[in-house]
Amino acid sequence: MAIVGYSRSAGMGVSAIVGLGNKSDIDEDDLLAFFEQDDNTQVIAQHFEDLKDGRGFAEAAQRVSKTKPVIALKAGRTAAGARAASSHTGALAGDDKVYDDVLRAAGVIRAYSLRDMLDYARAMPVLPTPKGENVIIITGAGGSGVLLSDACVEAGLELMNMPGDLDAAFREFIPPFGAAGNPVDITGGEPPSTYRATIRLALEDERVDSLILGYWHTIITPPMVFAELVAEVVAEMKAKGIDKPVVASLAGDVEVEEAAEYLYQRGVPSFAYSTEIPVQVLGAKYRWARAAGLL
Amino acid sequence: MAIVGYSRSAGMGVSAIVGLGNKSDIDEDDLLAFFEQDDNTQVIAQHFEDLKDGRGFAEAAQRVSKTKPVIALKAGRTAAGARAASSHTGALAGDDKVYDDVLRAAGVIRAYSLRDMLDYARAMPVLPTPKGENVIIITGAGGSGVLLSDACVEAGLELMNMPGDLDAAFREFIPPFGAAGNPVDITGGEPPSTYRATIRLALEDERVDSLILGYWHTIITPPMVFAELVAEVVAEMKAKGIDKPVVASLAGDVEVEEAAEYLYQRGVPSFAYSTEIPVQVLGAKYRWARAAGLL
Repeated sequence: MAIVGYSRSAGMGVSAIVGLGNKSDIDEDDLLAFFEQDDNTQVIAQHFEDLKDGRGFAEAAQRVSKTKPVIALKAGRTAAGARAASSHTGALAGDDKVYDDVLRAAGVIRAYSLRDMLDYARAMPVLPTPKGENVIIITGAGGSGVLLSDACVEAGLELMNMPGDLDAAFREFIPPFGAAGNPVDITGGEPPSTYRATIRLALEDERVDSLILGYWHTIITPPMVFAELVAEVVAEMKAKGIDKPVVASLAGDVEVEEAAEYLYQRGVPSFAYSTEIPVQVLGAKYRWARAAGLL
Repeated sequence: MAIVGYSRSAGMGVSAIVGLGNKSDIDEDDLLAFFEQDDNTQVIAQHFEDLKDGRGFAEAAQRVSKTKPVIALKAGRTAAGARAASSHTGALAGDDKVYDDVLRAAGVIRAYSLRDMLDYARAMPVLPTPKGENVIIITGAGGSGVLLSDACVEAGLELMNMPGDLDAAFREFIPPFGAAGNPVDITGGEPPSTYRATIRLALEDERVDSLILGYWHTIITPPMVFAELVAEVVAEMKAKGIDKPVVASLAGDVEVEEAAEYLYQRGVPSFAYSTEIPVQVLGAKYRWARAAGLL
């Protein structure tokens, strides 16, 4: 039921919703095999309390996840949750450490909360597959840059060690009191042209694989101006064959909510009032790409 | 800047926003002492990269947090974040384990993400202080009950060991295939009267200290019908002097967003498409109440 409202609210497509009941016939691996073949399905997200056939699931998931991301929310991962699962479906929730190992080995992206599962399912097909581990943060607020850096570590992302020549190139565009290195802190008083130039520089440099943007509301670069320029630069790059994952964190007045949706619908997963969620969804894409052998 | 948009969007009051700059004169403990005295302030939330005077802060926070919740988002808690903080403000971010210990000892509720800080700040003054550790979950969906149970363990909440007489009393209202125990699973086909009777039973029982609701969208009890009945029962109890923390998780079609806001504005922090956030904010209230010696 949460998928219904979330997907309508987000404008996310849903190819099918299947409730497995007590799995007396069809079970998880059957569905993986079915949706593997379904051209209308790009991502498979599932919630379960136990797996009927763990080995069958692991084998199917390992194969399917090479081409389509498989996301899993395993409920009953604590003792209290497992007791509740046993009353609910009779599920033997099992040792969570075992599930964790099985899911990881099978290339499944584990979500630890309902909202994470939904956010990953939405972002996964929007983000292009990264070609390498080098992530750069460009931010209009130093404080956001610090929180975004923390979030990168949490999400298992590598902040690129900034090469000297690229650092010098960024410094051409930012005030002397801005911080180069990574995060690139363009500082809070900059016009749209600074965002535009630095984002273009990052996307055009072959050593940069992914980009995280920290936007900070100012009068000189209002939220929708930021959103439009980012969408323009991303489209301009795509026309040149450059298609890298870009996510954005937006801090500001309520207009940032509209700006975030505008960007999301143009291929840039963006979130208002959060420095963590955009980084987490990028991290989920990386987890998938690594497990699928694409990185 | 994130506070501006989040608070306007949520209808959350903000008594003041103070940026400390480089703390050459006024620092964190001065502000704690100021807002301790300010009758217009119910909660103090802060984001910092380091503390100028750790001992002074710990002393002030320990005193202030006895009466007003103090929430802290410490940025630069990873090595990459600390490096970014050093470029940004020159902060020596320090050993995060030390911050964790200092903040906990001082009764400060630590938030690990920007969104958590905002969600805690909004929920804290809305939720009454619990009088004990006994938490009950009432849910219209067994699956939500399992996820809510997991979230309780994560948030350090105690699921009440259901007394036999109370269990029997709940069973009077729910179908035989529903699960009593805790979570109380009233099952998905129940009319508003079942929600009403079970919520009233939980709130009236002196052994129950807090209530977590899991709503699941059905035609027989639509989202706004659920929201209105919960608000009514909570108001009816308040009139009788019963004021316990109640939070809700709503899964369903887009109407649950409106229902969640309706409930939040009537004293029940509620969240659409999440089983974790309502439990986390209740957990934050408990952390504060324990540290303040109120439990």
